[in-house]
Amino acid sequence: MALQVKKIALLTGGGDCPGLNAVIRAVVKTAIRRYDMEVIGIEDGFSGLIQGRYRSLSLADVSGILPRGGTILGTTNRDNPFHYPVVEGGKKVWRDVSDQVLANLAALGAEVLIVVGGDGSLKIGKELFAKGLPVIGIPKTIDNDLLSTDITFGFDTALVTATEAIDKLHTTAESHHRVMVLEVMGRYAGWIALEAGLAGGADVILIPEIPFTYERVCAKILERRDAGKKFSIVVVAEGARPQGEEMVVQRYIPESADPVRLGGIGQRVGEEIEARTGIETRVTVLGHLQRGGSPTPFDRILATRFGAAAVRLAAERRFGYMVALHTPRIEPVPLEEAVRELKRVSPEGELVRTARDIGIGFGD
Amino acid sequence: MALQVKKIALLTGGGDCPGLNAVIRAVVKTAIRRYDMEVIGIEDGFSGLIQGRYRSLSLADVSGILPRGGTILGTTNRDNPFHYPVVEGGKKVWRDVSDQVLANLAALGAEVLIVVGGDGSLKIGKELFAKGLPVIGIPKTIDNDLLSTDITFGFDTALVTATEAIDKLHTTAESHHRVMVLEVMGRYAGWIALEAGLAGGADVILIPEIPFTYERVCAKILERRDAGKKFSIVVVAEGARPQGEEMVVQRYIPESADPVRLGGIGQRVGEEIEARTGIETRVTVLGHLQRGGSPTPFDRILATRFGAAAVRLAAERRFGYMVALHTPRIEPVPLEEAVRELKRVSPEGELVRTARDIGIGFGD
Amino acid sequence: MALQVKKIALLTGGGDCPGLNAVIRAVVKTAIRRYDMEVIGIEDGFSGLIQGRYRSLSLADVSGILPRGGTILGTTNRDNPFHYPVVEGGKKVWRDVSDQVLANLAALGAEVLIVVGGDGSLKIGKELFAKGLPVIGIPKTIDNDLLSTDITFGFDTALVTATEAIDKLHTTAESHHRVMVLEVMGRYAGWIALEAGLAGGADVILIPEIPFTYERVCAKILERRDAGKKFSIVVVAEGARPQGEEMVVQRYIPESADPVRLGGIGQRVGEEIEARTGIETRVTVLGHLQRGGSPTPFDRILATRFGAAAVRLAAERRFGYMVALHTPRIEPVPLEEAVRELKRVSPEGELVRTARDIGIGFGD
Amino acid sequence: MALQVKKIALLTGGGDCPGLNAVIRAVVKTAIRRYDMEVIGIEDGFSGLIQGRYRSLSLADVSGILPRGGTILGTTNRDNPFHYPVVEGGKKVWRDVSDQVLANLAALGAEVLIVVGGDGSLKIGKELFAKGLPVIGIPKTIDNDLLSTDITFGFDTALVTATEAIDKLHTTAESHHRVMVLEVMGRYAGWIALEAGLAGGADVILIPEIPFTYERVCAKILERRDAGKKFSIVVVAEGARPQGEEMVVQRYIPESADPVRLGGIGQRVGEEIEARTGIETRVTVLGHLQRGGSPTPFDRILATRFGAAAVRLAAERRFGYMVALHTPRIEPVPLEEAVRELKRVSPEGELVRTARDIGIGFGD
Repeated sequence: MALQVKKIALLTGGGDCPGLNAVIRAVVKTAIRRYDMEVIGIEDGFSGLIQGRYRSLSLADVSGILPRGGTILGTTNRDNPFHYPVVEGGKKVWRDVSDQVLANLAALGAEVLIVVGGDGSLKIGKELFAKGLPVIGIPKTIDNDLLSTDITFGFDTALVTATEAIDKLHTTAESHHRVMVLEVMGRYAGWIALEAGLAGGADVILIPEIPFTYERVCAKILERRDAGKKFSIVVVAEGARPQGEEMVVQRYIPESADPVRLGGIGQRVGEEIEARTGIETRVTVLGHLQRGGSPTPFDRILATRFGAAAVRLAAERRFGYMVALHTPRIEPVPLEEAVRELKRVSPEGELVRTARDIGIGFGD
Repeated sequence: MALQVKKIALLTGGGDCPGLNAVIRAVVKTAIRRYDMEVIGIEDGFSGLIQGRYRSLSLADVSGILPRGGTILGTTNRDNPFHYPVVEGGKKVWRDVSDQVLANLAALGAEVLIVVGGDGSLKIGKELFAKGLPVIGIPKTIDNDLLSTDITFGFDTALVTATEAIDKLHTTAESHHRVMVLEVMGRYAGWIALEAGLAGGADVILIPEIPFTYERVCAKILERRDAGKKFSIVVVAEGARPQGEEMVVQRYIPESADPVRLGGIGQRVGEEIEARTGIETRVTVLGHLQRGGSPTPFDRILATRFGAAAVRLAAERRFGYMVALHTPRIEPVPLEEAVRELKRVSPEGELVRTARDIGIGFGD
Repeated sequence: MALQVKKIALLTGGGDCPGLNAVIRAVVKTAIRRYDMEVIGIEDGFSGLIQGRYRSLSLADVSGILPRGGTILGTTNRDNPFHYPVVEGGKKVWRDVSDQVLANLAALGAEVLIVVGGDGSLKIGKELFAKGLPVIGIPKTIDNDLLSTDITFGFDTALVTATEAIDKLHTTAESHHRVMVLEVMGRYAGWIALEAGLAGGADVILIPEIPFTYERVCAKILERRDAGKKFSIVVVAEGARPQGEEMVVQRYIPESADPVRLGGIGQRVGEEIEARTGIETRVTVLGHLQRGGSPTPFDRILATRFGAAAVRLAAERRFGYMVALHTPRIEPVPLEEAVRELKRVSPEGELVRTARDIGIGFGD
Repeated sequence: MALQVKKIALLTGGGDCPGLNAVIRAVVKTAIRRYDMEVIGIEDGFSGLIQGRYRSLSLADVSGILPRGGTILGTTNRDNPFHYPVVEGGKKVWRDVSDQVLANLAALGAEVLIVVGGDGSLKIGKELFAKGLPVIGIPKTIDNDLLSTDITFGFDTALVTATEAIDKLHTTAESHHRVMVLEVMGRYAGWIALEAGLAGGADVILIPEIPFTYERVCAKILERRDAGKKFSIVVVAEGARPQGEEMVVQRYIPESADPVRLGGIGQRVGEEIEARTGIETRVTVLGHLQRGGSPTPFDRILATRFGAAAVRLAAERRFGYMVALHTPRIEPVPLEEAVRELKRVSPEGELVRTARDIGIGFGD
């Protein structure tokens, strides 16, 4: 019979995401209360693992953190141990320091590493597992672009933030007879734009999966004006592109450092609309607000379920898996499968079809 | 080839539920924009159908209603056409007036009736379908107790309201070293209590599916006190019962008139805790607040998808179905199957197990 | 020249109130950063002072507490040192232990005691000051019934909670053609009921300052029905009374232990309305939810200003004062004057007049 | 004795502001219910008055609008009748069309014009009054920069939006060890930045009234880092300026068309901080979100009081006044006095002093 797991290490990687603290709390509570394990919290993602920064987590450490955004462990986007910046001879060079990670964990006595992360962090987890490290993954991305799980925590909170923004812009748009453009996150997948657009009553939604033309976008706005609606709401995913423009997909790199660029596609769309229709247009870039805040109940619950499920997998010594929501169950998915490709919006799917049926335009 | 549907009737039945207006909007927009159908809105549920109160709904009628709670059509809990109160000879008697319903719809020229309702209203819909009326159902219940759909709209909003209440009680409990008891809805199924308890960090959750004893409830609270936690949060579903007490299940009756009784189980639990532990205890009954408010983005989207899907079914002349969420798809389920039994919390399921793993007690 | 104050003691007394932590944070930050004083935090109000429970507060102790409800120091309603429960000869008797308070503070080396509290706690503060203890008061009451300050922190947060409740009840009332009764806090003063009623669009507001008759309340509801409005919203302060019934004012006692009694005046009003008008009526008792939650920005700012101002007074050795908002200034008011009488709603004032002008009834 | 006023005209001018609908509702309800007057709603501010677009407002028109943002009358920023764009000979020229305004109102039979607006709109109102038009003003500005009233409606809602944004950025800043810069509105006055900064726990606040240097801003951030705080929150008013740079004050022009410029001062501050400290820095521009959303209870109440008070002034034929909050009273202030100068933050005042006392830096 296999030995019982006594000590697990836990890190949170990649961009900020509401629900990380709920995961940490569930891992610690389940480990200590249910299995009498010790949990070592690694600071600042893989960086802390490479640099040997960590601390033991007690029940008191996780008391009261359930409703809080952020992560008490810290996180960072720039810490791939297979491609890590090291200064040699006065110059910054990139090195594979993954052996150091394994050595540090061994020295620590941790029998398994739980990685809470998005596509980038989970890919690193997969490779560490391939090198022999017992890894369990927990999916995390506000973009909802992980294929093997119905949804991840963080997305619902981001959706609420984006929808509240549309609700706020709506009345001003209507009172001022303006076009209001809102740029939301979603570099490769348009989930936030699509769902917030549906929830907020947008008139046009532009997403990476459906290249648009400015002609069609403006035609929709003018069609509304001709029907007596003097305002329009346009929601734009940061990765949306006009037809013919290539979308540069940069995968295999931890989540990008700065997903919000002022003067990005939202700004361009706004300028084109005002120039082509003559209707006063204003642009808002929602940016980092989408990564913050107290997680919604849905996200707190899903994060808690993921955390407890990951510890159960650890107790059963089932490594190399990511926990996933296959409604209504939580099930393990091999890490390799989990990060094979991103989940993108289907232009022919029921969500887009519903949006079109109620009159929303996609600029195509 | 079947004739095209030209006119559909729509009613909202049973208790209030956030997302009803989003359904109405989606039905009207899809019917008019996508299929060029007319939508007749029936006022106040089946009552309006029996009494001949209805109006044609235009795009202007549904403009701006997406974020609003309630239903612009009105609703009521007391309007079963198979058991309808009629005054005869100065006395109130109960009659089957379902023929009148069919006659009224025929006179109106409506080819299909879309019923938005919970277990009670959908059962009526099923029986009207059995009598030959083309019916399509849309599930609606904040209690989340319908078996054939992963979830219904309204539940997420109720969950947010209940969780926010727990968040508010938490700090007072902690500052005053009190036990705070919150009674939430859920007469036959403990979904709101269980999920809000998980999301709000409750210490004890009492639900109809797991009969409790006051001894075990108090033992949990005293165990916490002995560990230095001077406060506790107890979430009680209105249908929770001590072991040995029978739960009276009244099915086949439209959703009950008043699910909140002051002095109900929450009050009893609070009194027993204070008497048995000597710790100051306070009770809050959340009541009708759970049925109101602007729907969450999740509920707005699901309601919109259900509304559009129901109209598509109507256009395809597929009657006798309820639209349901089988994540990630919207699929039709025969009405008969949809209302066969309620969906209740499994005491052995993963959600309850997760709650126990992180230390929540169920009083059993 | 007077000696510089080096050490101050701080306690929070009475019922919970959003903003207490913001006060504590401002006191500690101002004392340490601006004046290099030490702050001793007394636990659980006057109880901790009597029993000698306290701790030194550092900048780290107050980090991150600004947005949180409750008080990190704890509080209690039952701790009047002039009337304190002591067990003597196996019996509970009430004793004046105020000398013990002075002795404990002297032993502690604290040169001033800052009391954050409502009418009850400030009265105790006033008497301790009369006994020679250097006391500075900070007003705190969600009821807004302190005369010498324009407003206190906590009220705005309670007002938001109560208004959100009315917003939620509104759509259900309208959809179901019901009367919705909401009981809010306010035993001696109707500020929450009046302001939440104005903000939420109530039709009838019942407050302690304006005794009502059920006839007039129902007349207003029937007048609305006759004008085609099938629903009404009635907001009732817990201290509201029908004409002829005496209101028992219990002053000089710390804020009462349980301001919410199920089956109180809200319940009675609801039953009378349903019986007299025949319109379906539902009652919600908001209760403890009004004391919890993250403070609003207004309350966080006012609490911060009060905290900083109290420390400035301490530094100037100006004792026996309560800090007060005299818009836009913060000014000291002698404690004696501050607690002379409660601030109640003027039945002839501009707020009530405005409510009447827009058609709100007071049942008189 | 003066004749009774029978008909009043009402317009909302300038930028969007939460509470406008609450004003409209209070004016209509008070006029009809209390004084039996007719209210003519002018569409789109002074533009509608010049172009003759208006409609009579009934009680039904204002039903349900209390909690909604925006204005059912519409508004615009570009409609000064003393400087109005007219096309003559194929060219756009600017003309004084104020006589047309007086003529239109006379033709309409309106005896008084109620102008709801900020500094720009009220100045126009003052000049129309000087030309003999009976005008009553109601102050409106989210910037809170009107001198003669303690506060205006709209500000509290904007403050909540800005504070919620800081709350969201806080956890991300802390988890990622970043500097987060938030640019908020406030071209000439830093009220939103100052109060949101106080409420959100900012570390640095930059406002137009206190010119800053990048050295001092960065010194504060580095001081925090040296004390172990790896993150900082910087709130920047859009009108903040480094020492030596002139602030261009453009008064006498209706509120500017676009107060948010991407790449404005927030962006500059963020770039300088990152360049000078080497700490990862992110910028968010809150923009139009500050003008939208459901008004807070405070704003709904103040707007209602202003609306009712303005109608009372009209009934008393007291023209040429603006209603103002002189806590706790609503009082009339001569229009001329009301718009004499803007209310700006005092660098020596109690609010700034409190901020400094608790350790907030102003970069000076």
